[in-house]
Amino acid sequence: MSWLDDIKWDAQGLLPVIVQEVGSNDVLMFAFMNRQALVRTAEIGQAVYWSRSRQRLWHKGESSGHFQQVHEMRLDCDNDVLLLKVTQLGHEPGAASIACHTGRHSCFFQRHEQGAWRAVDPVLVDPEHIYR
Amino acid sequence: MSWLDDIKWDAQGLLPVIVQEVGSNDVLMFAFMNRQALVRTAEIGQAVYWSRSRQRLWHKGESSGHFQQVHEMRLDCDNDVLLLKVTQLGHEPGAASIACHTGRHSCFFQRHEQGAWRAVDPVLVDPEHIYR
Repeated sequence: MSWLDDIKWDAQGLLPVIVQEVGSNDVLMFAFMNRQALVRTAEIGQAVYWSRSRQRLWHKGESSGHFQQVHEMRLDCDNDVLLLKVTQLGHEPGAASIACHTGRHSCFFQRHEQGAWRAVDPVLVDPEHIYR
Repeated sequence: MSWLDDIKWDAQGLLPVIVQEVGSNDVLMFAFMNRQALVRTAEIGQAVYWSRSRQRLWHKGESSGHFQQVHEMRLDCDNDVLLLKVTQLGHEPGAASIACHTGRHSCFFQRHEQGAWRAVDPVLVDPEHIYR
């Protein structure tokens, strides 16, 4: 399919993916897709990544229940980075969404302050209660 | 400095950087920093990247005037991706900001639609008028 061939996959056949929450516009996480992960994401309308540590497809939410419903996919000007706009599922109605494996809303919770990284966002759910 | 050593630099000594606009929360671009670029960014309060194509430091705006004023730097849970929150400078007061070398607001202007990538955001300024 030509839209897959339009992408400049890196030397490992991967594409960096920025994941942004629809509504808040918060950046939730960063991951990678290979061709198969992107095809699967387009097919099922939920985010499927390539886990570099586990070397396998990773359907986000498969162990946490925190699936990501995809609203939009955007490619950058160089055709080598993807922006995924998602609804982060799996949290209590009305509560802040949880994308990070630490139980936080976003993976980007460490702020640079006076020459150090400080965790500034709260843990919303104990990870022990997320992964069963 | 320990905050620099906390970072898990990749095999090329680089760190992926997601650039987000303060206020709109729009994702403007994606780039890389090496250690020197990050030190320089922290020093001057404007974004300095490592250009992989030119293999040199790249003070964003040096040729376009579209500098980026840094408000916040956040590191992800794995210590290997940076989120930079910036004000995108260099545009007319009241006009939409321009971060992309194509003259668009954001680099992520190609939306996936029915099996194709379609440019859906307008060119705000002709690139020939940006780079002199």
